Amino acid sequence: MSTVMRRPQPLITLGHRGRSASSQPISSLMSLALANPATISLAAGFVDNATLPVEELGTISGELFADPRAAREALQYGTVVGDEDLRRGIAHRYFAVQPERHAERMILTAGSNQFLQLASECLLDPGDIVLCASPTYFVYLNILRDLGARARGVGTDAEGMIPDELEGALRHLATAGELARVKAVYLVPDFDNPAATTMSLERRKQILQVLENWRDRATILLIVDNAYRELRFEGEDIPSLSDLGADPERTVESGTFSKNLAPGLRVGWGVTPEPLYTAMTRRKGIIDFGSPHLNQRLVAGILNSGMLDEHLRRLREAYRAKRDAMIAACDEYLRPIAGVAYDVPAGGLYVWLTLPEGCAAGPDGELWKQALDKGVLYVPGQYCYPEEGDRVATNTARLTFGVQPPERLREGIRLLAEAIRTSGTRGNPEP
Amino acid sequence: MSTVMRRPQPLITLGHRGRSASSQPISSLMSLALANPATISLAAGFVDNATLPVEELGTISGELFADPRAAREALQYGTVVGDEDLRRGIAHRYFAVQPERHAERMILTAGSNQFLQLASECLLDPGDIVLCASPTYFVYLNILRDLGARARGVGTDAEGMIPDELEGALRHLATAGELARVKAVYLVPDFDNPAATTMSLERRKQILQVLENWRDRATILLIVDNAYRELRFEGEDIPSLSDLGADPERTVESGTFSKNLAPGLRVGWGVTPEPLYTAMTRRKGIIDFGSPHLNQRLVAGILNSGMLDEHLRRLREAYRAKRDAMIAACDEYLRPIAGVAYDVPAGGLYVWLTLPEGCAAGPDGELWKQALDKGVLYVPGQYCYPEEGDRVATNTARLTFGVQPPERLREGIRLLAEAIRTSGTRGNPEP
Repeated sequence: MSTVMRRPQPLITLGHRGRSASSQPISSLMSLALANPATISLAAGFVDNATLPVEELGTISGELFADPRAAREALQYGTVVGDEDLRRGIAHRYFAVQPERHAERMILTAGSNQFLQLASECLLDPGDIVLCASPTYFVYLNILRDLGARARGVGTDAEGMIPDELEGALRHLATAGELARVKAVYLVPDFDNPAATTMSLERRKQILQVLENWRDRATILLIVDNAYRELRFEGEDIPSLSDLGADPERTVESGTFSKNLAPGLRVGWGVTPEPLYTAMTRRKGIIDFGSPHLNQRLVAGILNSGMLDEHLRRLREAYRAKRDAMIAACDEYLRPIAGVAYDVPAGGLYVWLTLPEGCAAGPDGELWKQALDKGVLYVPGQYCYPEEGDRVATNTARLTFGVQPPERLREGIRLLAEAIRTSGTRGNPEP
Repeated sequence: MSTVMRRPQPLITLGHRGRSASSQPISSLMSLALANPATISLAAGFVDNATLPVEELGTISGELFADPRAAREALQYGTVVGDEDLRRGIAHRYFAVQPERHAERMILTAGSNQFLQLASECLLDPGDIVLCASPTYFVYLNILRDLGARARGVGTDAEGMIPDELEGALRHLATAGELARVKAVYLVPDFDNPAATTMSLERRKQILQVLENWRDRATILLIVDNAYRELRFEGEDIPSLSDLGADPERTVESGTFSKNLAPGLRVGWGVTPEPLYTAMTRRKGIIDFGSPHLNQRLVAGILNSGMLDEHLRRLREAYRAKRDAMIAACDEYLRPIAGVAYDVPAGGLYVWLTLPEGCAAGPDGELWKQALDKGVLYVPGQYCYPEEGDRVATNTARLTFGVQPPERLREGIRLLAEAIRTSGTRGNPEP
């Protein structure tokens, strides 16, 4: 006699999208750190709590709710592409050339991240290639990984992506028969994340020239991420790639009010040519019917009131002071260590650190262990390297001066210097 | 001598996700209607502008911005799953059984639509089957279509999905060797969209019993959409499926503050068991890092203040009056037409209309043309039918009393009756 054993039915079976959903590599590191509240985080790219425009948004919000008609409109569903008044305000603020046309091609999203994710999702098939600076924004690399796309690194210097390296990468891919897979170039021209570089006017023109040279051989979209553009501490704004003549039919520009105003609003934007505009709008309609109308009306109120520029003056001053504090601490504690290098960023939130050759800054490395032990946290630079096309420098780290006050920045850098020394890196001449 | 002609390079080549992004079938109909501003829309499921809680949200917003520490927190990034205080508030409000556990399994999203989309995206592979009431929420059908999943209709009566029909559908699919493809049952137990039905206590228990019967043979997730649950005009709340003992390891419950508070906030929520919770959280992290913290704090403020119940009293009264106005108009203008049928909904925003046999209410039908011509808009019922499993009744229409004031409701129904008569439907005994 035999008993038929039935295999127990699983409780839930995920589909392939659920099974392959990967966590941000960085998030497990961050939760590690939170276990010790005394840890000084120079890692997460949050903004400075003290700079958040409570008074300004309180005023605008008060005005909005004092006008029942306007408030009702803000509390009702908006459109999928977002509030027209805000789209026009953004377009006129950020584009000198054809602002009205940009407003018509703009989609307001949940931060610029949703815009970049939607654009990439609609553009890319698995195996498609996006050329990125090496290093580049690790969260965007994760978006690409999630879509099964390939990120290929292009060499950089103090001005960001090197035009000759971009040309070389395209030639290499053409020779390898992979040119048809190259779908986009992703750039953060101002105060890049993580390397804090800014592309000069000449550099921008050269990059556009390379794309122009390949125009008839390849179908490459230029994706420009302007997240940090307004956090300039010194010098003059450099025209955007769109204003410098980037082909509007092959250029996407995105921006956000997370860094210059408040991330808790989740108001981002992007401009895109057809047919991507239609595809993205449809996908956003399926996902969330459009981002919160209330938040869009608040940001429109800030723009229309002229408060943003006054706020930006204070914000830049605050971040400049914190940048100075971090750089002063680096000069004091890190510069004496042979093999350590960093540049002084002219804006943004980051300092990119090159450590002595052989210093293992990754999550399995000795420096990471020592730093955790001493109570300081950074982003291992290796997360910021595309998987193809350029060597991964494991002796690098991204530091941010965004969150901590000056004295904690100084203490964090001191602890990091200790950790570097203790981790016994080669190239370190003294104990 | 030959000239090599190079085929011009396309400006942009979309990936398969971009190419297949479909528009909401309804959106083109809606834009048609907007061309004539005099048109009375009984179509879009918007909420009544006049009922939006301007004063309440103004008060909560004023209190928030008057407390710089709380305001700064609200303006900073939140977490991917959303504000803990709000999650606990929701769990204690909507779940009698194990509220704390529900809070821990809750994700706050951009309306409940984003929750339903994320859950479906993580759960379903192309070709997977979701069993739905026939008719059901057409926007959810579009989510399934977009994922390449199959929606299969299950017969309904005045209490929603019929347990015997669900049992029959499962037997049929088992016989056809397709049981392993059945991944979920989607239900709107209270004031369903579009049919306005509410499942009785007994009906809920019977549906749970069918799922229990199949528990060891199939892996079926119960997806419960509570969008309209709090818009009850009369009678007592019926316990939710979770509180009636639905298996917490195989049940998803979602809800939203779009209908009971304000859609412009885009605050929705859902509770889900593992491994879906982890997969959805990861995907949301990749897409938007979490929904706006500010909006979550505003809703938490409304919940904590106790204002929601007072607001709901007024809201129910307002919608009840509008329901009564629409039903009175139906009784006056539609009931005399042979073959027209409708029930009086006990809540929600909709009246489901069955028209005379042969009346073509679809977008290519005579009734649609006549209605547009006379200036009244409805949702063709055929959009609400899953593609498989049950016949599509083209002689149906969804009407909403949510948006228009009573006198416009009356006029809209009068015009609709005229359109039905003019369209010369069989079964209409008089001119």
